[in-house]
Amino acid sequence: MSKYGEEIPNHTREDIMEATFVALCQHGYADITMEKIAEGSDKSKSTLHYHYGTKEKLMVDFIKFLLEGFEDKIVPNSDDPLEKLNTLIDRMLFGLKEGDTHERFHTALLELRSQAPYNEKYKKQITKNDEVIQKIIVKIIEEGIEKGKFKDTNPERIATIILSAIDGARARQISTDREAAENVREALDRIIESTLMKNSRGCKQ
Amino acid sequence: MSKYGEEIPNHTREDIMEATFVALCQHGYADITMEKIAEGSDKSKSTLHYHYGTKEKLMVDFIKFLLEGFEDKIVPNSDDPLEKLNTLIDRMLFGLKEGDTHERFHTALLELRSQAPYNEKYKKQITKNDEVIQKIIVKIIEEGIEKGKFKDTNPERIATIILSAIDGARARQISTDREAAENVREALDRIIESTLMKNSRGCKQ
Repeated sequence: MSKYGEEIPNHTREDIMEATFVALCQHGYADITMEKIAEGSDKSKSTLHYHYGTKEKLMVDFIKFLLEGFEDKIVPNSDDPLEKLNTLIDRMLFGLKEGDTHERFHTALLELRSQAPYNEKYKKQITKNDEVIQKIIVKIIEEGIEKGKFKDTNPERIATIILSAIDGARARQISTDREAAENVREALDRIIESTLMKNSRGCKQ
Repeated sequence: MSKYGEEIPNHTREDIMEATFVALCQHGYADITMEKIAEGSDKSKSTLHYHYGTKEKLMVDFIKFLLEGFEDKIVPNSDDPLEKLNTLIDRMLFGLKEGDTHERFHTALLELRSQAPYNEKYKKQITKNDEVIQKIIVKIIEEGIEKGKFKDTNPERIATIILSAIDGARARQISTDREAAENVREALDRIIESTLMKNSRGCKQ
């Protein structure tokens, strides 16, 4: 059996990924070590090294793992494109569970993003994640247009502003004392209304 | 004369700040040291320590310095609120000068943002910067409303989405291979048109 990645048994990988999540929330990216991850898992440090070799490789798999979790847990199941879009935005902005863990976790993610320019492997996987998430939003908007619920607009462009605003709100929420997420949620409501909804209030004047 | 901050002679502070800017672009925040900053300045490492004591204190003054530079260099002078807003967005998204320096510099800023949850002093100064910049945008929008150029909308909310989208676009630009800034610029055009402009195309359907 080869080392690193694909062939790690599912339950082993899941256990390591869960422990990585907890360690990232607790210590932040800069202070995380294979040892600290191993402490929160039922695997030893040497097992982690056996499967991943380096912290960098483990982190790349962790970013990949997040994407799998995103599709399973964050993308809502609904026939109504507007409800689907709104629920997805809420989950991305406020998390599945609110509170400290959500914020600490996004802090660690922001640290990973800020390392991407120095680390081609992080950059590649973050790009892939962003592209998949962008496509999910585009698909919801396209579905809304097809069903006649949304205006015939440019889905790529609206998806980009929604995702950039969410990313920016998270970064501001983390790095300032401002309540960015609530404001951005309100602003996105307005954006959705004026750019996607037919007969929007914005068009009465 | 007291150490640290206020009473550093202007030309000394400016020289240190310029050197900090260059060192941040070159090394990134994680690898920057007082020694590396001193190398790019005509001041010695001990002069830096005399004035600032620690790298942390120097960085806080650097974030403050950026805000002063923002008001002088980034905020455009124009009587037309729409032109003022558009020029400001362009400068924030694409920089005064395009290219590598702009991107490296924003990478360092993103690193500083990602450290804010662990560093109350960074958080405080970044919050202050964000609030001043938010107020500048709000004022432009209010001016546009007063002059009858913009719809009577909620300036705080529109300013929040503009700034969050810019922050998010920068973070995506830095951490992925996607061309986020161009897309966000296009999307913001649409947002400005549909939420601020009277008789916008978005209202014809």
